[in-house]
Amino acid sequence: MTAGEKGPPGIRKVNLEASFGRFSDHWVPRIVGALNGQLVKIAKVQGAFDWHRHPEEDELFLVVRGHLDLHLRDGVVSLDPGELCIVPRGVEHRPEAREETWIVLFEPEGTLNTGDRRTDRTVDRLEAL
Amino acid sequence: MTAGEKGPPGIRKVNLEASFGRFSDHWVPRIVGALNGQLVKIAKVQGAFDWHRHPEEDELFLVVRGHLDLHLRDGVVSLDPGELCIVPRGVEHRPEAREETWIVLFEPEGTLNTGDRRTDRTVDRLEAL
Repeated sequence: MTAGEKGPPGIRKVNLEASFGRFSDHWVPRIVGALNGQLVKIAKVQGAFDWHRHPEEDELFLVVRGHLDLHLRDGVVSLDPGELCIVPRGVEHRPEAREETWIVLFEPEGTLNTGDRRTDRTVDRLEAL
Repeated sequence: MTAGEKGPPGIRKVNLEASFGRFSDHWVPRIVGALNGQLVKIAKVQGAFDWHRHPEEDELFLVVRGHLDLHLRDGVVSLDPGELCIVPRGVEHRPEAREETWIVLFEPEGTLNTGDRRTDRTVDRLEAL
């Protein structure tokens, strides 16, 4: 909601560009929305993440800026801005971005960024923007 | 998946621009993805839709092109491309677009576009792209 705009209480809009502008670290998702037991998260990523899987959660990746390679055990899905992919539960994947890439994630509450692995990149408590 | 790209079976990417290019009618959402009991839909909208609410479902609107006014009983949320808003369950709303506008919707399976009202714009069976 921009200043001066008449808006209802408790309902806000999220400007993705502005939200991405509020942090700079990589592989640390932020929460920008919650609905129906799911979370909308955004993250800046660069480099290779760890192989992991989410046993009970399907995970959606939408690229806003940059380029994301979703490595899977039997191939790779390459995403440019405006492209999305859903990785089904149980499927091992390893996101990788050669340049800084901005992504939107849709997944259930409680989904851990490193899936069934706990590493030094695991983020237990996500900041809500 | 573009031709020639090595991709795993059963996992596909969705290019939003290309998906929007596959239909031209207004207010008829298409399904582009399913995860965790939720659907990702896209729709082209223009003009004023009907007032409605979804008693049990929160609904996310993300604008890709154009401009969407989400009228609520106590205000309006105006969305430009790259902006999203979540309308909580039970909240009456009336989407309106002065120009043709492309939106992404994220909501539970079974959510009816006209909510708790049945009109000539109700779409019971959605096409999956």
